[in-house]
Amino acid sequence: MFKKVLIANRGEIALRVIRACRELGIATVAVHSTADANALHVRFADESVCIGPPASKESYLNIPQLLSAAEITRADAIHPGYGFLSENAEFAKVCQDCKIHFIGPRPEMIRLMGNKVRARQAAREANLPLLPGSPTALKDAREAEAFAREIGFPVILKAAAGGGGKGMKIVREPGALAQAFATAAAEAVASFGNGDLYIERYVERPRHIEIQIVADEHGRVIHLGERECSVQRRHQKLIEESPSAALTPELRQQMGEVSVRAMEKLGYNNVGTIEYLLDENGRFYFMEMNTRIQVEHPVTELVTGIDLVREQIKLSSGQPLQRKQEDIQMRGHAIECRVNAEDPVTFAPWPGKITAYSAPGGYGVRVDSSAYENYTVLPYYDSLLAKLIVYAEDRPTAIRRMQRALGEYVVQGIRTNIPFHRAALAEESFMEGNYDTRFVERLLASETGTKRLRKAIEETP
Amino acid sequence: MFKKVLIANRGEIALRVIRACRELGIATVAVHSTADANALHVRFADESVCIGPPASKESYLNIPQLLSAAEITRADAIHPGYGFLSENAEFAKVCQDCKIHFIGPRPEMIRLMGNKVRARQAAREANLPLLPGSPTALKDAREAEAFAREIGFPVILKAAAGGGGKGMKIVREPGALAQAFATAAAEAVASFGNGDLYIERYVERPRHIEIQIVADEHGRVIHLGERECSVQRRHQKLIEESPSAALTPELRQQMGEVSVRAMEKLGYNNVGTIEYLLDENGRFYFMEMNTRIQVEHPVTELVTGIDLVREQIKLSSGQPLQRKQEDIQMRGHAIECRVNAEDPVTFAPWPGKITAYSAPGGYGVRVDSSAYENYTVLPYYDSLLAKLIVYAEDRPTAIRRMQRALGEYVVQGIRTNIPFHRAALAEESFMEGNYDTRFVERLLASETGTKRLRKAIEETP
Repeated sequence: MFKKVLIANRGEIALRVIRACRELGIATVAVHSTADANALHVRFADESVCIGPPASKESYLNIPQLLSAAEITRADAIHPGYGFLSENAEFAKVCQDCKIHFIGPRPEMIRLMGNKVRARQAAREANLPLLPGSPTALKDAREAEAFAREIGFPVILKAAAGGGGKGMKIVREPGALAQAFATAAAEAVASFGNGDLYIERYVERPRHIEIQIVADEHGRVIHLGERECSVQRRHQKLIEESPSAALTPELRQQMGEVSVRAMEKLGYNNVGTIEYLLDENGRFYFMEMNTRIQVEHPVTELVTGIDLVREQIKLSSGQPLQRKQEDIQMRGHAIECRVNAEDPVTFAPWPGKITAYSAPGGYGVRVDSSAYENYTVLPYYDSLLAKLIVYAEDRPTAIRRMQRALGEYVVQGIRTNIPFHRAALAEESFMEGNYDTRFVERLLASETGTKRLRKAIEETP
Repeated sequence: MFKKVLIANRGEIALRVIRACRELGIATVAVHSTADANALHVRFADESVCIGPPASKESYLNIPQLLSAAEITRADAIHPGYGFLSENAEFAKVCQDCKIHFIGPRPEMIRLMGNKVRARQAAREANLPLLPGSPTALKDAREAEAFAREIGFPVILKAAAGGGGKGMKIVREPGALAQAFATAAAEAVASFGNGDLYIERYVERPRHIEIQIVADEHGRVIHLGERECSVQRRHQKLIEESPSAALTPELRQQMGEVSVRAMEKLGYNNVGTIEYLLDENGRFYFMEMNTRIQVEHPVTELVTGIDLVREQIKLSSGQPLQRKQEDIQMRGHAIECRVNAEDPVTFAPWPGKITAYSAPGGYGVRVDSSAYENYTVLPYYDSLLAKLIVYAEDRPTAIRRMQRALGEYVVQGIRTNIPFHRAALAEESFMEGNYDTRFVERLLASETGTKRLRKAIEETP
């Protein structure tokens, strides 16, 4: 097992990794920008190293600084968390070259899944169902049009190097395709330095369902069921749950088995998540794979009883999987709300000093947060302030528990999206489990939704 | 189901009940003394009523004030929490007379179990194993001596009306009996206004094991396994866990069944706890029964997945038990540390203002607390500040998780017993699960124990 792990991240995920390491008896090294000197991850780690100025490029994305911090502190492994360098194959490779364990899959896996076109090819070869679309990057708008006619409208254009909604355009009729192609390509160049686009069928009312994969270095793969992450705004997840109300036991088993077989074929190692689109007829299509721990991993931990970060660390050290698929039992229901420092209506980031802070507690409530009273939310980084996760024996109780916990959460001095969550959970379609990825859009466009949101803003302390 | 519940209590247990009510859709009324106006239970309840000055006698123990608060707010039920009026049969009776549901067993049950001598008689009739001893109160020291010769030394003298260690004396030889009798009787008069004593065999190295009972109004009774509460100082519990390392599955089943049969015979209703002494040979003896929710109930909730306070409220409203004994499955391991505002060495209460507060979080950590930054711990009430509870798949992981969580807990401005817990969990006998009710005494008398405690004090932020 590793002796000392350096965590190349900040915020709640850095705490999450420190906690897992401490419980495994592994020493920890925090790294931080000059702006993060008072952050909890710095206080909770055994050692800490300042790696540069506030801008991520010069600190949390600064590979040479991170490696020298690992060398100075004699860390034998690096955990990248999520975001930052977690899906940077080059970083994983350099760690390997420096004889430092990168906690994650092999660099080839990261590289493969980081390129949407190559990932789709690999998925096809591994028998994962794909939406009809172009197998490789499109040459131009004309080629896009030819594919669109074959697939049938509506279609969607996506950046090959993309993610997070950048360089994506839905096209509902042939006449709009050329303009959409130009805009998406320009966005892709601006965001990823690569204008390559591909095209696929666009699913109306899709649900975002993802399968959690756990694989060891010895070819064994299992899955831990699904997470539903359809509550998104501009492709940013806001609420996640497990299990999904959309899946039957048969569909769950099918999605799990297809995913496991594909990962076995690819030779995937470590934890990872396969994201699928689920249509209204129960057909599912591969979207992409994340080769790292995900923000929403706690909902899976609560329903399976498996500590995913601990598992990830153990697998990276070469330990074989201790559990077989038949040992995995999903029990109860878990929901996560991402509490962001942002305006609850416009979703504009809202950095600043937290003047009063009190987190909810009690039975079935888990808080993963790096916030505390007098902490200043910084403008340089992601606005995620806390993950509020609840567990209960069934979905209705979990929803009531989450409402109760949101009602207790005190965060003063800045704005948060707590009122948004309170309004979202009260929506009929959410309560009935009958929602899709346009849920947020519809909530904000509806009279009852906006009324509930205003009321929640008034009632939030 | 009830429409509105008044919580005749304060602190973390008042929050616990408010949370359960909110999740059941029941409105809540908090009551508070003038000193508690800013307490979280007041903020979190739907309504609140000030019931008097700081002294408990004039507020939280003031029956007429509590009843008029219930009448004014039209509460149809009262939850007494633990302590205060929770085991006052008169209060339960008066509630009944006023047509307000008392959330707990019938007044006769409370009265029966509130008197140690009558409780022992009832236990004997219900086939619960008893320590050899006097069946009724002793006339005098001479009668005590006669019994002691019959039972064999060491013996223990206990106040009939007692609890919390007051009026208890261990006697190891005949010559010390007369003096001990006089002292214990005097203590009993001073503490309970009743000098009656009884005598029983004293068990060396006993463990405190209690069985959680859940019973409905229709004669159905089940048990939820055991809690071990042997880590006590002056009969005050400090650390509790479930399951106990001392019980085999057979002994667990036996203790559970004996307890359930006895409760069926007595016609017990609602939740309750039967406390047993377990000796080194696996023999167990009835000590007493608590006819209320207990401080340490969360450890049972975490291993059984059953919300005990919700269950209690539902049972009080007349709902039948939904679960059979065979539905109850204990999974994993839970530990609770009572975080008190007190000196970690002398255990002297340490009220004052909390200048910095940050509770632990993450996977498997539950915090039940009424504390927050700038909260002032009051000198008038119990020193319990928070219950820190962890859950894990096995006992060693739970211990490591608790150590990790204790290490994260920041409470500044006052002293707490967090360093004591860190030292206690690091004791070999605790880690091995081989400890008894004199654990704390031995820790504080040993060189390694006190050294660890000093180190923990230094390391606590």
